Amino acid sequence: MIIVLKRDATDAQIDHVVKKVKDLGLSVHLSKGSERSIIGAIGDEAVLTSTPLDAFPGVEKVMPILKPYKLVSRDFQKEDSVIDIKGVKVGGKQVQVISGPCSIENKSILLEVAKEVKKSGATLLRGGAFKPRTSPYDFQGLGEEGLKYLREVGDETGMPVVTELMDPRDIDLICRYADVIQIGARNMQNFRLLKEVGKTDKAILLKRGLSATIKEFLMSAEYIASMGNRNIILCERGIRTYETATRNTLDLSAIPVLRELCHLPIVVDPSHAVGRWDLVAPMAKAAIAAGADGLMIETHANPEEALCDGAQSLKPNKFDRLMGELRRVAEAVDRTL
Amino acid sequence: MIIVLKRDATDAQIDHVVKKVKDLGLSVHLSKGSERSIIGAIGDEAVLTSTPLDAFPGVEKVMPILKPYKLVSRDFQKEDSVIDIKGVKVGGKQVQVISGPCSIENKSILLEVAKEVKKSGATLLRGGAFKPRTSPYDFQGLGEEGLKYLREVGDETGMPVVTELMDPRDIDLICRYADVIQIGARNMQNFRLLKEVGKTDKAILLKRGLSATIKEFLMSAEYIASMGNRNIILCERGIRTYETATRNTLDLSAIPVLRELCHLPIVVDPSHAVGRWDLVAPMAKAAIAAGADGLMIETHANPEEALCDGAQSLKPNKFDRLMGELRRVAEAVDRTL
Amino acid sequence: MIIVLKRDATDAQIDHVVKKVKDLGLSVHLSKGSERSIIGAIGDEAVLTSTPLDAFPGVEKVMPILKPYKLVSRDFQKEDSVIDIKGVKVGGKQVQVISGPCSIENKSILLEVAKEVKKSGATLLRGGAFKPRTSPYDFQGLGEEGLKYLREVGDETGMPVVTELMDPRDIDLICRYADVIQIGARNMQNFRLLKEVGKTDKAILLKRGLSATIKEFLMSAEYIASMGNRNIILCERGIRTYETATRNTLDLSAIPVLRELCHLPIVVDPSHAVGRWDLVAPMAKAAIAAGADGLMIETHANPEEALCDGAQSLKPNKFDRLMGELRRVAEAVDRTL
Amino acid sequence: MIIVLKRDATDAQIDHVVKKVKDLGLSVHLSKGSERSIIGAIGDEAVLTSTPLDAFPGVEKVMPILKPYKLVSRDFQKEDSVIDIKGVKVGGKQVQVISGPCSIENKSILLEVAKEVKKSGATLLRGGAFKPRTSPYDFQGLGEEGLKYLREVGDETGMPVVTELMDPRDIDLICRYADVIQIGARNMQNFRLLKEVGKTDKAILLKRGLSATIKEFLMSAEYIASMGNRNIILCERGIRTYETATRNTLDLSAIPVLRELCHLPIVVDPSHAVGRWDLVAPMAKAAIAAGADGLMIETHANPEEALCDGAQSLKPNKFDRLMGELRRVAEAVDRTL
Repeated sequence: MIIVLKRDATDAQIDHVVKKVKDLGLSVHLSKGSERSIIGAIGDEAVLTSTPLDAFPGVEKVMPILKPYKLVSRDFQKEDSVIDIKGVKVGGKQVQVISGPCSIENKSILLEVAKEVKKSGATLLRGGAFKPRTSPYDFQGLGEEGLKYLREVGDETGMPVVTELMDPRDIDLICRYADVIQIGARNMQNFRLLKEVGKTDKAILLKRGLSATIKEFLMSAEYIASMGNRNIILCERGIRTYETATRNTLDLSAIPVLRELCHLPIVVDPSHAVGRWDLVAPMAKAAIAAGADGLMIETHANPEEALCDGAQSLKPNKFDRLMGELRRVAEAVDRTL
Repeated sequence: MIIVLKRDATDAQIDHVVKKVKDLGLSVHLSKGSERSIIGAIGDEAVLTSTPLDAFPGVEKVMPILKPYKLVSRDFQKEDSVIDIKGVKVGGKQVQVISGPCSIENKSILLEVAKEVKKSGATLLRGGAFKPRTSPYDFQGLGEEGLKYLREVGDETGMPVVTELMDPRDIDLICRYADVIQIGARNMQNFRLLKEVGKTDKAILLKRGLSATIKEFLMSAEYIASMGNRNIILCERGIRTYETATRNTLDLSAIPVLRELCHLPIVVDPSHAVGRWDLVAPMAKAAIAAGADGLMIETHANPEEALCDGAQSLKPNKFDRLMGELRRVAEAVDRTL
Repeated sequence: MIIVLKRDATDAQIDHVVKKVKDLGLSVHLSKGSERSIIGAIGDEAVLTSTPLDAFPGVEKVMPILKPYKLVSRDFQKEDSVIDIKGVKVGGKQVQVISGPCSIENKSILLEVAKEVKKSGATLLRGGAFKPRTSPYDFQGLGEEGLKYLREVGDETGMPVVTELMDPRDIDLICRYADVIQIGARNMQNFRLLKEVGKTDKAILLKRGLSATIKEFLMSAEYIASMGNRNIILCERGIRTYETATRNTLDLSAIPVLRELCHLPIVVDPSHAVGRWDLVAPMAKAAIAAGADGLMIETHANPEEALCDGAQSLKPNKFDRLMGELRRVAEAVDRTL
Repeated sequence: MIIVLKRDATDAQIDHVVKKVKDLGLSVHLSKGSERSIIGAIGDEAVLTSTPLDAFPGVEKVMPILKPYKLVSRDFQKEDSVIDIKGVKVGGKQVQVISGPCSIENKSILLEVAKEVKKSGATLLRGGAFKPRTSPYDFQGLGEEGLKYLREVGDETGMPVVTELMDPRDIDLICRYADVIQIGARNMQNFRLLKEVGKTDKAILLKRGLSATIKEFLMSAEYIASMGNRNIILCERGIRTYETATRNTLDLSAIPVLRELCHLPIVVDPSHAVGRWDLVAPMAKAAIAAGADGLMIETHANPEEALCDGAQSLKPNKFDRLMGELRRVAEAVDRTL
C-alpha cells in the first residue's frame, strides 16, 4: 500500500502514520520528496484496508497495490475454470447458450419453448419461479409450482436448469430443483445470499449489479468462493448509464477485462441489457466475438402474452435463425456452439 | 397510456394493437397524423404495464401517463406524513439527527458516543449489528450481541434506535431490539426484505440504491406500503456517477423532487455519500437548506480505530460544533434542530 | 406532442395551455380523464419545442412524439447512405479500417506505419496535427507541418487521409490537406465547428461525445446536414460511465440503435474507448459482429516512444494479425474487409 | 509516480522500465515484494505522463502521486483568490448573484429584468448573444446586436455583464462588450477557446462540463491560467448521471472538494442543473450552505414567452422572494448577500 502525505504534513503526523503501519505488522519505506512524502507499507495489505489511514491527519490519499480478491483471481489460478453442469461445460471451447422464458407460466408453454430451443442448440434451460419485480403489483412468479415444472421440463428435454434464488429462506427448495442457481443483478451485493449459495456445491450464475464495478463484481464472486464453492459463472448483463435508448448499456469490454483478472467463465445476457428483442441478435453476436463463454437469451412461444419481459423475448423461429448466425461468429473466433 | 405507431405501421398492425388494448378493458382514442399515428389508451393503465405493447409489430414507443406508485404518492395523500418514533417526530418542523457509529463494537464505546451525540442534540441513535461489507474478509458485525448493546444504550440515553436488517430470517430478532429498521442501499430492491418489513409496524428507514432512479426508489417504498406499513422514511445517501473525487455523488435535488411526488419524510446521509469526514459538514448544511427532514451522520469516539467506515466518521467534538452550525441553517429555513 | 396536466389543474389553466397551442398554429385534442387530463397537440411539433409548456401552470409533463432530427433520420431516407471517399466506400458491404498514429510526429515514422497498415488492409490513414490534450503542458501537435506529412504519405501510399479539426479558424487549412475531417468527441457539441464543416463538401467523421445521448449525437449530425453537407460518418468511441477498469465504456448497442434511427454509416473506435492496446482486438471483433461499417484503430511503429496515446496503439505486426482475425468475423456476418 | 509490476514480470522487463525512467532524468527506488514489485520514480513526474509506461511489458498499472495542475492548485497559492469585476468581488465574504435571461431578446425586456434583479440584490447581469443550442432549428441568439443591448443595460443599471463566448473568432467582439466571459459546459474542453481567453485579462466564468471530472475541470482552468490569465471563476452546473427526474444532477460536493484543491472562487448555476424553475430555490439555498461564493440564476420577465430555457427561468417577483431567503441562509453560514 502506498500512503501519500500532504505537502504540509508534519513530522509528528508522519511518525503517527508510520507507527500505526508498523503496529499492524508491516514494514515501512519512507520516501521524503520535495513535493510530497510517501510511505510504502510492505506486507499483508489486507490488515490495512480496515484501518482508515486516509482519515489520519497529514494523509492525502491511500493507494492499494494488491487486489482485494484472491480465490477468484488469475494470481491464484492461472488456468481457466471450466464449470461442468451435468456434462454441459461452461468455460471450454464450446459457447453454451442458456435459453427459456423470463418467468415460468405453466408447464405446457415451458415444454414447448424448451423443445424448440433445445432443437436450435441451446444446452441449458432457464425459467424464473421467483421474480424480482420493480412493482409490487406485477406477477411475482409461481413459486414451487414453477420449480417443479422447470425440473420436469428439464428432465424431459435433457437440459440442466437455471433458476433464480431471491431469499436465503428458499435455498433448500431451490437446491432440490435447480442445477444452476442464479443470483440476480439486484442481489449481487446481497451478501447473505452469496454466503448461502457459497455453502452449496451447485453451479452459481452470478449477475453483475446494475452499477457494480468490475472489482465489486469480483468481490461478490469472492464471497461465494470464500465459503467453499468455486463453481461460479460470471454474467455481464448491462450496466446503468445516462443513455436511455437501451434499457442498460451492455459492457462487452468487461469480458476481456474479467478474463485477465479472473479465471472464471463469463457469459453475457443481451436480453436484459438491451430490453428489446430486435437488438438481441447483434449484441449476442458481438458478445461471442468479444470472447464470451456463453449467452443467456430469453425466448417465449408468444411474447405478446408473456407475463414478464415479453418485449425482450425472441420467438422460437427467430431464436433458431439467430443460433445459425451465432454459430458462424463462434467459428470465426475458433469456438463452437 | 400513449402508444406511438411507426411511420409505416399498417392498418392491420394498428387494429391488432387497438384490439389488444380493448380486450384489456380500456377504451381507445386513435389519432391518425401525417407523421405518426397515435393511440390513447384510457382507463386503468396498470393492466397495460405487464403487456409488452412496445414489442407489438408497428409500435414505435409506449409512453405511460400515470405514475406506477400509488400509496406513497402525493396524489394519494396531500399532507406530509409525520412518522412518530417514541415521540421523535420525523417529517415535522424539527430536523431530526440520527447519529452513532457505523458498526457496534462494544457497549462502552457505544455508550460514550451516544451520550455525547445526545448532548449535542441528536435524537436517534444508530449502530450496525449486521454489516453489508464488500469484502468477505472484513468485520461483519457483532450480530445479536450488538443489538443488545444498542438497545441498552438507547434505553439508558433515552434515544430510539436504528439498525439495519440484511436478511429476512433476522426480522423477528431485529424487531425485538430496534425502533427503526434500516434497509440499506444495496438492499433497496431486495423485494423479499421489503415485504417482510412491510408486515411489521416499525418505522422503516429506506435508503436509496446506488443507481436507483427516483421512480424506482418510490416503487420500493410502495412495496413496503402495499403490505400495510406506511411508517416509511426515505433516505438519500448519494448515487453512483462517473465522479470519483467523492465516494458517491450526493443528489440533493432528490429532496424537492421527492417532496413534490411523495408525502413521506426525507432524510439525508452525507457521511456515506462523500466518504470523508471533512466533507460531511458542508453537505449536512446543504441538505438542511435544500429541505431535508433529517440527517444521518456517523460519529465515532476514535475514528482511527473504527472497525468500519472510520474515514467518514466525526469525532464527538467535531459533531458538536457541526450541530451548532446546522441549527443556524435550520433556523434560516424556518426549521428547528 | 402530448401535454399531461396535473391532477388538480384548473379549467382556467387548461384553457390557457390550449389557447397557447392553438395560437402556435396547431390543433388540439383534449381528453379529460379521471386521473389526469391530456392535451394532444397535432401539427408541426417543432414550433412547440421552443415554448416552455412544461413550465405553464397546471402542466405536469410534456412528451414529444416526433424526433427532433430530420435530414439524418430513416424517416427522411430509407436506404443506407454510402460515403465515397476517393473510391473508398464507407457504409457498403466492405468494412473499412482507418488506421495510423494518434498524432503525426514526423514524416518517416508516419510513412513507415502507413505502408504497414496499408499492406495489412487498412484503407484510410489517420493522423492528428492538432491535438486536443487534457493538459496544456502536453504535446499539442505539429500543426500545418503535420498536415503536409499526412497528405504526402496519404498520396504516396494511395490512402485518403483523416484528420481532426479543432478550431473554425483552421477550416481552410484542413480542407487543403484532408479527405475526411474528424470532429472529436470533446467537440461534438461545438456547434460553430459543426456549421463550418457543414458548409464544406468533405466527408465528416463525427465522434460521439463522452456523455452524449444517441439523440444528441444525431442532433449534432443534423447540424452538419442542415448546412448542406450530408457526407457524415458517425463514430462510437466509448461513453463515460462509473466503470474505471476501461478508460470509457464502448457502447456497441449504439450500432443497431443508430442503424434503426438513421441512414448514415457507423464506425467504431475501440482504441480510445478502452485505452489499452491489449483490449482493442476483442472489441474490434465485437464491433464488426454488432454491425459496424468501419473501425478506427490506432497504430504506432514504436508505441513506447509515442508522443500521444501510446498505451492504446498497436504495433504493425499486432495490427496485421488482428486484421486477419477481423476478416474472419466480417465474413461470418456477410461483410468483407 | 508509482509503477506496479505484474506478478510474473521478468527481470529484463523490470530493467527495461527502470532504464526508461532513468533516461527521462528521474531517480528510481525499486522494491521487490513477494506479491508484486514496485518502482517508485522520484523527480519531475510531468515528463512521465506522456510516456505510456502502462503499456510497457510487465507493467500492471501506473499511479501518479502528484496533481497534474499547478497554477490553480492550493499547493501553488494558499490564499483564496478574489476576482474583482469593476468592484464586484467574487470569492470574498459576499455571495454574488449573477442574474438575467438565458438569451437576450431585445433591449426593453432585458432592461426590465435587469432593473428588477438589481433591485433584489443581484450584482452581475447575464445574457446570451450567442447560444449553443442542441437543435440547429432553434433560436441561435442575436449576435452583436445582443451584445450591444447587454452593454447598454449593464451600464444603465450599473452592473458588470457576463456573456458566453462560443467561437475563437468572436474573441475581440466579446471583449469589446463583456466584463466576464463565460465558457459554457459544452466548451469546457474546447482547448482553443481556453487558450484565447487565457490571453485576455477579462474575468472568465468556466462552467464544468456535463461529464467532466473535478480533475479535468481544474485542468481546463489550468489551460487558461497557463496562458497568463488567472481571473478564473469556476462554475458547477450539474453533471450527467442516470437520473432523469432533473435535467442534470447538481454536484454540490464539488464545492468543498474544489475548495480544498484549488484557490479559485466557485459559483453554482442551479437553473441549468435542475432545468425547472420550481427546483431552483431549494438548490440555490443548498449551494450557499455548502459554501458557494456565488450563484447564477436565470430570470425572465415572462418565462412563457422566453426564446430559450423558459422552463427554468424565475419571474422577477419569485426571484425577489428567493433573494430574501438566500440572504438568511448566507448569514447562517457567516456570509453576506
